Amino acid sequence: MVCRSAPMGAILYMLQDHDDKPAHECGVFGIVATDADVARLTFFGLYALQHRGQESAGIAVANGRTIRSHKAMGLVSQVFNEENLRPLAGHLAIGHTRYSTTGSSRLENAQPFVVESVLGPLAVGHNGNLTNAATLRQELLTRGVGLTGSSDSEVITQMLAGGEGRTWEEKFKVFMVRAQGAYCLTVLTRDALFAVRDPLGLHPICLGRLGERGWVVASESCALGTIGASFEREIEPGEILMITTEGPRTIAHMPAHKPAECLFEYIYFARPDSLLHGKALHAVRVAQGRELAREAPAEADVVIPVPDSATPAAIGYAQASGLPYSEGLIKNRYIGRTFIQPDDQLRQVGIALKFNALTDNLAGKRVVMIDDSIVRGNTSGPIVRLLREAGASEVHVRVSSPPIRHPCFLGVDMATYPELIAHRLTIPQICEHLGADSLAYLSLEGLIKASRHGDDTFCRGCFTGKYPVDIELVNKEIFELR
Amino acid sequence: MVCRSAPMGAILYMLQDHDDKPAHECGVFGIVATDADVARLTFFGLYALQHRGQESAGIAVANGRTIRSHKAMGLVSQVFNEENLRPLAGHLAIGHTRYSTTGSSRLENAQPFVVESVLGPLAVGHNGNLTNAATLRQELLTRGVGLTGSSDSEVITQMLAGGEGRTWEEKFKVFMVRAQGAYCLTVLTRDALFAVRDPLGLHPICLGRLGERGWVVASESCALGTIGASFEREIEPGEILMITTEGPRTIAHMPAHKPAECLFEYIYFARPDSLLHGKALHAVRVAQGRELAREAPAEADVVIPVPDSATPAAIGYAQASGLPYSEGLIKNRYIGRTFIQPDDQLRQVGIALKFNALTDNLAGKRVVMIDDSIVRGNTSGPIVRLLREAGASEVHVRVSSPPIRHPCFLGVDMATYPELIAHRLTIPQICEHLGADSLAYLSLEGLIKASRHGDDTFCRGCFTGKYPVDIELVNKEIFELR
Amino acid sequence: MVCRSAPMGAILYMLQDHDDKPAHECGVFGIVATDADVARLTFFGLYALQHRGQESAGIAVANGRTIRSHKAMGLVSQVFNEENLRPLAGHLAIGHTRYSTTGSSRLENAQPFVVESVLGPLAVGHNGNLTNAATLRQELLTRGVGLTGSSDSEVITQMLAGGEGRTWEEKFKVFMVRAQGAYCLTVLTRDALFAVRDPLGLHPICLGRLGERGWVVASESCALGTIGASFEREIEPGEILMITTEGPRTIAHMPAHKPAECLFEYIYFARPDSLLHGKALHAVRVAQGRELAREAPAEADVVIPVPDSATPAAIGYAQASGLPYSEGLIKNRYIGRTFIQPDDQLRQVGIALKFNALTDNLAGKRVVMIDDSIVRGNTSGPIVRLLREAGASEVHVRVSSPPIRHPCFLGVDMATYPELIAHRLTIPQICEHLGADSLAYLSLEGLIKASRHGDDTFCRGCFTGKYPVDIELVNKEIFELR
Amino acid sequence: MVCRSAPMGAILYMLQDHDDKPAHECGVFGIVATDADVARLTFFGLYALQHRGQESAGIAVANGRTIRSHKAMGLVSQVFNEENLRPLAGHLAIGHTRYSTTGSSRLENAQPFVVESVLGPLAVGHNGNLTNAATLRQELLTRGVGLTGSSDSEVITQMLAGGEGRTWEEKFKVFMVRAQGAYCLTVLTRDALFAVRDPLGLHPICLGRLGERGWVVASESCALGTIGASFEREIEPGEILMITTEGPRTIAHMPAHKPAECLFEYIYFARPDSLLHGKALHAVRVAQGRELAREAPAEADVVIPVPDSATPAAIGYAQASGLPYSEGLIKNRYIGRTFIQPDDQLRQVGIALKFNALTDNLAGKRVVMIDDSIVRGNTSGPIVRLLREAGASEVHVRVSSPPIRHPCFLGVDMATYPELIAHRLTIPQICEHLGADSLAYLSLEGLIKASRHGDDTFCRGCFTGKYPVDIELVNKEIFELR
Repeated sequence: MVCRSAPMGAILYMLQDHDDKPAHECGVFGIVATDADVARLTFFGLYALQHRGQESAGIAVANGRTIRSHKAMGLVSQVFNEENLRPLAGHLAIGHTRYSTTGSSRLENAQPFVVESVLGPLAVGHNGNLTNAATLRQELLTRGVGLTGSSDSEVITQMLAGGEGRTWEEKFKVFMVRAQGAYCLTVLTRDALFAVRDPLGLHPICLGRLGERGWVVASESCALGTIGASFEREIEPGEILMITTEGPRTIAHMPAHKPAECLFEYIYFARPDSLLHGKALHAVRVAQGRELAREAPAEADVVIPVPDSATPAAIGYAQASGLPYSEGLIKNRYIGRTFIQPDDQLRQVGIALKFNALTDNLAGKRVVMIDDSIVRGNTSGPIVRLLREAGASEVHVRVSSPPIRHPCFLGVDMATYPELIAHRLTIPQICEHLGADSLAYLSLEGLIKASRHGDDTFCRGCFTGKYPVDIELVNKEIFELR
Repeated sequence: MVCRSAPMGAILYMLQDHDDKPAHECGVFGIVATDADVARLTFFGLYALQHRGQESAGIAVANGRTIRSHKAMGLVSQVFNEENLRPLAGHLAIGHTRYSTTGSSRLENAQPFVVESVLGPLAVGHNGNLTNAATLRQELLTRGVGLTGSSDSEVITQMLAGGEGRTWEEKFKVFMVRAQGAYCLTVLTRDALFAVRDPLGLHPICLGRLGERGWVVASESCALGTIGASFEREIEPGEILMITTEGPRTIAHMPAHKPAECLFEYIYFARPDSLLHGKALHAVRVAQGRELAREAPAEADVVIPVPDSATPAAIGYAQASGLPYSEGLIKNRYIGRTFIQPDDQLRQVGIALKFNALTDNLAGKRVVMIDDSIVRGNTSGPIVRLLREAGASEVHVRVSSPPIRHPCFLGVDMATYPELIAHRLTIPQICEHLGADSLAYLSLEGLIKASRHGDDTFCRGCFTGKYPVDIELVNKEIFELR
Repeated sequence: MVCRSAPMGAILYMLQDHDDKPAHECGVFGIVATDADVARLTFFGLYALQHRGQESAGIAVANGRTIRSHKAMGLVSQVFNEENLRPLAGHLAIGHTRYSTTGSSRLENAQPFVVESVLGPLAVGHNGNLTNAATLRQELLTRGVGLTGSSDSEVITQMLAGGEGRTWEEKFKVFMVRAQGAYCLTVLTRDALFAVRDPLGLHPICLGRLGERGWVVASESCALGTIGASFEREIEPGEILMITTEGPRTIAHMPAHKPAECLFEYIYFARPDSLLHGKALHAVRVAQGRELAREAPAEADVVIPVPDSATPAAIGYAQASGLPYSEGLIKNRYIGRTFIQPDDQLRQVGIALKFNALTDNLAGKRVVMIDDSIVRGNTSGPIVRLLREAGASEVHVRVSSPPIRHPCFLGVDMATYPELIAHRLTIPQICEHLGADSLAYLSLEGLIKASRHGDDTFCRGCFTGKYPVDIELVNKEIFELR
Repeated sequence: MVCRSAPMGAILYMLQDHDDKPAHECGVFGIVATDADVARLTFFGLYALQHRGQESAGIAVANGRTIRSHKAMGLVSQVFNEENLRPLAGHLAIGHTRYSTTGSSRLENAQPFVVESVLGPLAVGHNGNLTNAATLRQELLTRGVGLTGSSDSEVITQMLAGGEGRTWEEKFKVFMVRAQGAYCLTVLTRDALFAVRDPLGLHPICLGRLGERGWVVASESCALGTIGASFEREIEPGEILMITTEGPRTIAHMPAHKPAECLFEYIYFARPDSLLHGKALHAVRVAQGRELAREAPAEADVVIPVPDSATPAAIGYAQASGLPYSEGLIKNRYIGRTFIQPDDQLRQVGIALKFNALTDNLAGKRVVMIDDSIVRGNTSGPIVRLLREAGASEVHVRVSSPPIRHPCFLGVDMATYPELIAHRLTIPQICEHLGADSLAYLSLEGLIKASRHGDDTFCRGCFTGKYPVDIELVNKEIFELR
């Protein structure tokens, strides 16, 4: 299949770090330790989870009586300093890093949410998306709760603060009966840390051990290593885990559906050094690349990744295909948000702030370009053209995940139907749009096989349109007051 | 009575603008106008009310469908710029300037509070203090509402958002049945502005007219003049006034106690160019000074005020006594918050950042020094000493209000019992403490007579300890989470 | 003379603190003290001199070997905190507050200027304006010095750093031979403080004593009192005073022209509690008001000032005329820079952010309105109209200085010829322009008599156009690079 | 050679992006174009040069008459926005990004330096280090120039502004006769851009073409590609190139020593996609890795880089050795400056914020770890331990450059003699210090051969201690005033 020399629009501007990738929702962290500076450890834990959200960060600390917190817009390293960390004294803490689309970027939505409730103070950090948030929100309004922001994390917080149940344990169970969709929670009361994972287990959260008597929970295991904690186990889908100074105790396993883990944690989200089901995601992605080489070989001279996220898959593709691995694109390490717009002339000359091509590695060569996913398809075309201008004689695009044909309604910012290129176009049409010599995606079966052998418990909604839960089709901005 | 040469402690540092004065709680503003930029007019209205609160400022605007808002810590002129004012488009608006003691200074407490409720969006600005806030707060928690901050303004907002009543009108009436204490509210729904004054009428709020079809409410009439509106009338104690594009309509007059206006609005709070009961407060304060001259004359050569607030009273005292009026103290016009602490040496030399004395007007003279009130008594002594060092042969202190012997529990930050000098000491002891040659206060009768002839409907709690309502003795910081 | 009912333009917006007043250039401060925190004392000294410049502030400290400094845009209280003050350790210091027109507002022009020179480090603070700056600047460029900013203070610094002379003493003498115009300097070397005043003595600078062994110099004596120093004497016109830990020593008295002090220091600039020639300026201004009453009496019922600067003159006018003194205008104490522009509607209604009128004191009365000076004449008219709208039956404007018919070229920002209302119009025309019933200015003779008896050594350039030096007619912005 | 199990100190904290690497000095850029927004193009050019300096950034623009500029501390994307870019209109521009050690981090040292000179305005951007700066600086002081900062770039600016010569051309020639050491300059006058490279050609600077009539100069060719310019040629060592709207013209080739290019541009500094002598540095570094494999093979199972800079060398080592290439360390992509210090407990557990190990790729394997250079040796040891803790059975460290035994005095921040581990220890001792199983460096001959065939014109001072120029042994901080 050859589909070359498509007419191309102007090369687009690649200023964002996550161009044309699905976007994380959040990272959560929690810790109980009587002999440590829990706020400081939470800071370093969030530092390791920064890739899961760069919009805002916050820490709440409990000391047996009250909860104190600090949160602000920005990276973890920008939000915290010694001065605002110092007052956060206690022996239990949770932390949160938040990603959000620009539209709803407001301090009111930063987490943890901290409220006073009838059972005392409460702090909540949430990763995920409730699919029945609109219903739950309306119930809260009807019950007479005024809601300040638009995030469903506030809905969760008010459900816990005011929901049925005489104890926190009861309240969590009631909450899990009512909530649908994706939620990993770390919740702080004045003397306990709760870690909760939805019955589908959509997003990861794990338990670690810190020294003799400390316990840690985190979205990803990479945060454990960073603070010197050891990996213990994953929180189970449907599990409510309560941790006090006495240690962890499972309060309940809510009747689970068949689990449905988000495949994009395996493809792109989680850091390559994090473990899922005991295996580092780097190795998983190398296996995806190997499988891709078997499914979709190419006659070529060299294999290159679109850095950085596709590097493991490219290494795997090279290994399985026997083609040499190399680098063909250099990424500007100092990409930052800029508000300076290119002018017309710059648009014409085709500015490429994010990547430059390595002519020496490409000139006269038939190139296999490995990417891990294509969402809107607006950056792959310019990259193909960049490779051609650097002298590549052929460009064969290989993608280590299947075509994304459906949006995600469970907490991943994946674009809408009209934006998804694989919803609008066939694979040959996409190939032509990209100006590639050939294009192939990894099959869903291949992806699942490479991701975890003999175990098919994944959510595959964005590939198949069949979601593990009913979806209230609500726009995430729908509740915005402003 | 002569009580001189009291041993004095080191002269204290006078860095705050409101040293030893009772402190305002807040200023509220509201506007309905179909043919004006209501956010911009609210900005200029708040500018005129800035003296009622310098900690935070905010504006909320309704356009018939939604409410948008912006608020931040700082002066009105610091909080707003063209960029954040521009999105606030609509035809109804409220604004708020907030004062608070440092302890609870947090953005979470800035107003207006904006929430989504079952009847739609709601924005609330509040001046005052509920005396049964703790009870109401507990009821909200029991009802299952998580509360984020510590201010009773959030309590009011959640009571309105979720309280009984099928309409806003009903909800306001229910609220007024339940709430006790001081509250002037401006409340915005998506298509109406409500102005509410507690049945005691503790703090002022008035109605003005802007052009043909615009209506304005404000804590003080000075804000009307600033935006070109004309004074219409005061909102009545117990009145719920609803203003829409159809104009104002009184929803209810709640059964009132005997009104109990705060006397300190007449003594110090309200701007001298504001009107209360049709009379400018400048004239009221001149009359207080005249009455003080009659009650407590002094053998002296010159009358000087402690600037700026005692200037009208000093003018009145001079007029009635026949003594010449002059200035004896110059106030640094650029007083600002500084975090630089004087060192020991500076303490010894007696730094006086706020005032310098005018030797030429004082040397060899018997001086009557007029102040409008003494709370803690920590700045009057150093000022007396400053006058003596400038050569004053005698210093006779005259205060145009009675001794403050009790705290306020109705929204004025007046200090606690142990801090109040007139609670601890007799007048001769205070005189000795100040190092004055004589000291006299205006009598309560004199104050009332000068403030409004033949009409005794004032709250006099801080002078007599008899409050117009039952007081839950709660510290305002009591609900603070952090 | 009656000149009423002039057609008036739209009422202008009075947002600046110094509307229609000549503008200060700078305040300088210096200290030598072995047993004190000299940077901290300089901070408090600058605090007292804040009225002389609000654009930027800076402090430089010498410790016998090196000079350290900090400066930034903003008020003294905004520029300094404990963190940036702490490193400024030493026993000699200078400080500076700067005013400048907006055009050349840049950090590069903030003072003190600190440079390394062949004789070691050098820090310079300057108040004034050189009249031959362009010539001197060209000489420096020709000598091969690259100049970074546009201020003549940099010219002074480079002249001292690189001018002829083997010692600092020689360099200062050479400088004074070459420089023309107005300059009060405080200069720091690694082990000495120099205070220099131009031979004309245009602007004030005085010497004070701090404890046993400390010495202070400051633009105005009010800064001495603030830090507990006692007034010693003024620096003489033409004097070079050197202060080390050994105490002060006069290096030279440069051959002086007849002194020519700036009359506007007596009229408006200096704080009323500062002393000039042993007399507080408050008393001087009361005398000016008395003289004005004698020269230009009015049939009226009440005397009011335009606050705050005209208050002493109004007190004097009231005293001499026998008319009662009162307040008729209330100034918003929280005037701050705002970038919010009034819209057209606000322009029509006649917003008056700065002043509100006191109807009770004005209605039905014939008012004498005292101002200390009129420059452009753009705010007096609106104030007259404000008084009329408040019910004043007549408004008689009296100004306690003569008509300003010429710009200042010696460091005062006084407006240009076409801007000066008294350059364009006769007094009756101005009266008509203001809409006043009568208008009178204090005569130059009266001003001088009131300001200092029997001693006529003033610069009167802005009144007569006869300057004490030759003027290079250069625009102050002329050297701006950007 | 085996040198294992050395006792190790606590693992250090790896928070900086450039840990244990020599540090760039600066990046320079210049452009002449009559039909383009030169400031905007300079912004994007600096964006591509950001890796050469992250402390401050600045742009100066000339329009035939004047020069305007803006500069501030921070990244290019932080320093500039549309508001401060807009006023920078013209047709010539230069830009600068600056690196500096913390000690001398001050806005005064940010570039470009802009001064007014006798020939008109002048803006200077400089990359490098003068070896006779102290002498030149003293000459300037003696000539009577006051110097404000401590950088030798100010020395260059003042030498050009005030040096001998009636024209700019003459001044540049005089400058090059006097200056010794490393300097790549982009200099703006009101109507010309000068690009100057020192006779040794220590650091790179090249010329590019933009459209029909535009010309660009930049430290590295990667900046040309980013704005759509094509590479033309390198500026020659000793060349003075003048570019006006008429195009480029070589003013002079100053008599050159034998050229002496900095080898660290080939090893680490320049971006891998930049060209030097027509070859991309990525290919050069792959060749270095290949040579290293030939010189120092290892019995091992896998080759991994220390990311990101050693990746090309690791690819080359894998290719030449036949060992599989993989990733063993994951770098946190969100490393940012944090002021939060780890506490004692965190120190003990061995926090590793910068890198996590990929256990799957390492466990039970003999690992070749490729780094491009070792300076102080404080991060390599912890990385070796990290690999071992992840299960590596052997760790063989291979470095693609020779041992650094001497500091650089020509503009590279390379550490001092006592800090350089290869100055203090033998290779076996270093191996033991790192806890590696074996350690080998690339030979100098191998490095040179791989970097450029048959052409030995490199500075090798840091490897051999033989510098191409005389060194005034001055500490870069020596002139600091504060």
